[in-house]
Amino acid sequence: MDLKSLIRDIPDFPKPGILFRDITTLLRDPVGLRYTIDFFTQKCTEAELKVDYVVGMESRGFIFGSPLAYKLGSGFIPIRKKGKLPAAVHAIEYELEYGTDCLEVHQDALHPGSRVLIVDDLIATGGTASATAKLLQKIGCELVGFGFIIELRDLQGRKHLPDVPIISLVEY
Amino acid sequence: MDLKSLIRDIPDFPKPGILFRDITTLLRDPVGLRYTIDFFTQKCTEAELKVDYVVGMESRGFIFGSPLAYKLGSGFIPIRKKGKLPAAVHAIEYELEYGTDCLEVHQDALHPGSRVLIVDDLIATGGTASATAKLLQKIGCELVGFGFIIELRDLQGRKHLPDVPIISLVEY
Repeated sequence: MDLKSLIRDIPDFPKPGILFRDITTLLRDPVGLRYTIDFFTQKCTEAELKVDYVVGMESRGFIFGSPLAYKLGSGFIPIRKKGKLPAAVHAIEYELEYGTDCLEVHQDALHPGSRVLIVDDLIATGGTASATAKLLQKIGCELVGFGFIIELRDLQGRKHLPDVPIISLVEY
Repeated sequence: MDLKSLIRDIPDFPKPGILFRDITTLLRDPVGLRYTIDFFTQKCTEAELKVDYVVGMESRGFIFGSPLAYKLGSGFIPIRKKGKLPAAVHAIEYELEYGTDCLEVHQDALHPGSRVLIVDDLIATGGTASATAKLLQKIGCELVGFGFIIELRDLQGRKHLPDVPIISLVEY
């Protein structure tokens, strides 16, 4: 199935000069949604990833991470922006193009040795995925891989990630 | 399965006096996650809901809405906070305890006659669900039901929703 045909290009979002890859048109399509989740699951199974927890980043990472966890028979752990999680958290600050951002995970969600797969909708420069990896490694988790629907190859986000399997379904 | 035993109570979040029902402990449990999605799907099937689109509210609604859409064989439509969706939107403002908030949906996501199921993690006073219903009804959608993991019965959110089936898995 040609997933690219279901992904919409939106010029100049969120700011001038950026071509945004919009996955809402893919989600809207029942066959596209089903195929995406099944294909994602199949790629993880083929890579023989042993996943205790799928970790998904707020908020588009939730859309793909949760059904993937369901399909893989693992748990789902949300990574959220500052102040959104209700219990005690581990946090990491990371640099954006302008300023910094902060990601948080519940302190009791993961433990040393937990085998985690980090999932987001898209990898561009890899800043968010790399920060999430550092946060989980600080806890002592075993990072088994990354999963993205879309990979923007030109931005070389892979170069900033640890040396584990990186799954992406669509490349630009 | 006793889903309540997997939902954690957090006092005084997000502010003093509020007892927050935390579903991250449920999501983290592989059996709990699987059971929740399967039970949610079963309840929708038993209610004989004919769903073209599951509509999920940012961002915990994404976690349950997306796998439910997958299981029901329908599309998934995200409802987001102001400025997050990349293409042209329909918007609705609604009142919070203090001030107002705004929800948006892509203009080309839904059409008159689209059969929609509104999904969120929790219904309290029903403000968000009611605003979403109004937004979708303005478009001309056929609202076939609401689905929540948790319903806080004391707050009587149901009273503010249109007269369609309301599914909730756990009541407090």
